Amino acid sequence: MKVKYNLLHKEKDTKARLGTLETNYGIVDTPMFMPVGTRATVKGLNPEEVKACGSGVCLANTYHLWLRPGEDIVEYCGGLHKFMNYDGPILTDSGGFQVFSLAKNKKKDITEEGVHFKSHIDGKNLLLTPEKSIEIQNKLDSDIAMSFDECPPASASYDYLKNSVLRTLRWAERGKKVHSNPRQSLFGIVQGGAYEDLRKLSAEETVKMDFDGYSIGGVANDGESKEDMYKAIDYSIPYLPEDKVRYLMGVGEPVDILEGVERGVDIFDCVLPTRIARHGQVFTRHGKINLNNARFKMDLTPVEEGCDCYCCKNYSRAYVRHLISVGEVLGGRLLSIHNIRFLIRLTEEIREAIKEDKFLEYKECFLKDYNSKNK
Amino acid sequence: MKVKYNLLHKEKDTKARLGTLETNYGIVDTPMFMPVGTRATVKGLNPEEVKACGSGVCLANTYHLWLRPGEDIVEYCGGLHKFMNYDGPILTDSGGFQVFSLAKNKKKDITEEGVHFKSHIDGKNLLLTPEKSIEIQNKLDSDIAMSFDECPPASASYDYLKNSVLRTLRWAERGKKVHSNPRQSLFGIVQGGAYEDLRKLSAEETVKMDFDGYSIGGVANDGESKEDMYKAIDYSIPYLPEDKVRYLMGVGEPVDILEGVERGVDIFDCVLPTRIARHGQVFTRHGKINLNNARFKMDLTPVEEGCDCYCCKNYSRAYVRHLISVGEVLGGRLLSIHNIRFLIRLTEEIREAIKEDKFLEYKECFLKDYNSKNK
Repeated sequence: MKVKYNLLHKEKDTKARLGTLETNYGIVDTPMFMPVGTRATVKGLNPEEVKACGSGVCLANTYHLWLRPGEDIVEYCGGLHKFMNYDGPILTDSGGFQVFSLAKNKKKDITEEGVHFKSHIDGKNLLLTPEKSIEIQNKLDSDIAMSFDECPPASASYDYLKNSVLRTLRWAERGKKVHSNPRQSLFGIVQGGAYEDLRKLSAEETVKMDFDGYSIGGVANDGESKEDMYKAIDYSIPYLPEDKVRYLMGVGEPVDILEGVERGVDIFDCVLPTRIARHGQVFTRHGKINLNNARFKMDLTPVEEGCDCYCCKNYSRAYVRHLISVGEVLGGRLLSIHNIRFLIRLTEEIREAIKEDKFLEYKECFLKDYNSKNK
Repeated sequence: MKVKYNLLHKEKDTKARLGTLETNYGIVDTPMFMPVGTRATVKGLNPEEVKACGSGVCLANTYHLWLRPGEDIVEYCGGLHKFMNYDGPILTDSGGFQVFSLAKNKKKDITEEGVHFKSHIDGKNLLLTPEKSIEIQNKLDSDIAMSFDECPPASASYDYLKNSVLRTLRWAERGKKVHSNPRQSLFGIVQGGAYEDLRKLSAEETVKMDFDGYSIGGVANDGESKEDMYKAIDYSIPYLPEDKVRYLMGVGEPVDILEGVERGVDIFDCVLPTRIARHGQVFTRHGKINLNNARFKMDLTPVEEGCDCYCCKNYSRAYVRHLISVGEVLGGRLLSIHNIRFLIRLTEEIREAIKEDKFLEYKECFLKDYNSKNK
């Protein structure tokens, strides 16, 4: 089935919205944070652990799975759900972002047909087109697929961005035409940098194509400021239909999730919680801390007092610090669980605040604590 | 409490014995295989996963924990059980083997006092003595501690070995004298290479000191042949009391476990199952296989048909191969679970065979399959 967004409540002082998303694997609540399982695994965690964090949808990566093991193998294995043993909804990105960020030497040749580039693994010449991206995602059999878009850097000129937006619209149309998996939804992506008219153009034309949901892209590519991100959201949201879900791609930090929700975003994803975990960094209500710091050597308290995650319920900072400092992978695993749970718990609290029309109060309170650095 | 070994049944055709070991954390069955948690974690697994493999006792490493995080920190955190959140029996080795195998540039200076060597981490000068080893283990608060012994290489001469055995006896006595943790058992270690008279000397004199259990060491150091290992066991066992448990250190392969049990050994440990797992190698009833092999790319069967471990119940060879080949740590984790469960299941079946006086039949049958290479 195609996903169906149900708008339950609009917060009174902001554009924040409470909703649900009906999927092939049940109904999930929004606003929501999606953990990222790039290569068909959320790094270090098994599916039960991902679910125990309260995750709704899990993300997987088209570019990486195209290269290894290959979409045909995943299809042969019964699709992504069966392959990775995850019986919850899965969203795949289009590979567009990885082509732009991971191509060998960052060199690529963007043509009307698609993007020519070299594999970041073996340097092999590759071509990713809108059709190919959709074909791969059809075979991966995710529940939600993304249109193939260009992800230009923040430094791109207005003229470049305008051409890019127009090309991405043509690519979206081409992808939609070949999309053929009846149980998979397809989302359109709004681009246009921090320019109001380009975001408007991109959003209006994308919406005309009638996708199952809409993403806001180009906010976490390369060098975007937070101001640019907020502008990109503000300039896109007014042109997106109320009855479709909105996904801000590649975001992120707790503050960005709050700013996104305030502006009307429903879904977020980011590799941040697992990436920083492997280096010993964790989110807490009082800001990020780094467990490599010697002051945690004999700290018997959990990573975050009051957190209900598996890591905090069972281990001390001293133990997790030991694991991280000697390079034991259980350390990154425990902190990944905590960081993912932290962001999901943030969205749970956000949903409560929206329900009670107290979003701004909640946001202010959260950020005051988060920025207090009183650890 | 001190561990108490109960001999339940002696197999009729061999020296194999069925027993139980009463520990601070309940009664465990022998023969038994212990997973190795070198740095207070069985690599990649959490304690629940280790227990789900059916593990009785878990091993931790005195040398590694002495260096990082330090025994004082573990003691401050409430001992190893609380530190690593493992509520089953834990055995610590003495650090003797690591000093001999890990010392920087393998250079060490063995004196009557102890062993002078350089840390494998930062090259710092260190001295490990029998007293220090016991003091560290007392603080780690494991359930079973090991006496500090010298682990000479297989190439050592008879004269060298004889002096080494005599020194290890003096070291055992010194360690026993300072041992002061009332809830911790202390095991003596029999050395003597593959020489009958040295093993007899070492065993008889060690037993005179009346330890809570006895280990057979010097069989998995550096270059020992399987014949030497079997000789070492054969020459030691006759001098060990029937009412104490017997532990063959650092072993091993399925065939070695079978040979050890046949000769009267009760406990085994080895890093093999987790080490080979991280490289994609797994035990199966039909021998070891390497999942990196391309023929597993589209293999929808579990790692081992009929295995009851978490990996085999939930994932295909194709998926685990993908994880291993792209370097995702979940791969090593899943295969570690399988390999540990494989060896523990082997000991479960061995216990059944002993109970029914069919050990040799079981051994022959197992080895026929294992060596058939019919995968």
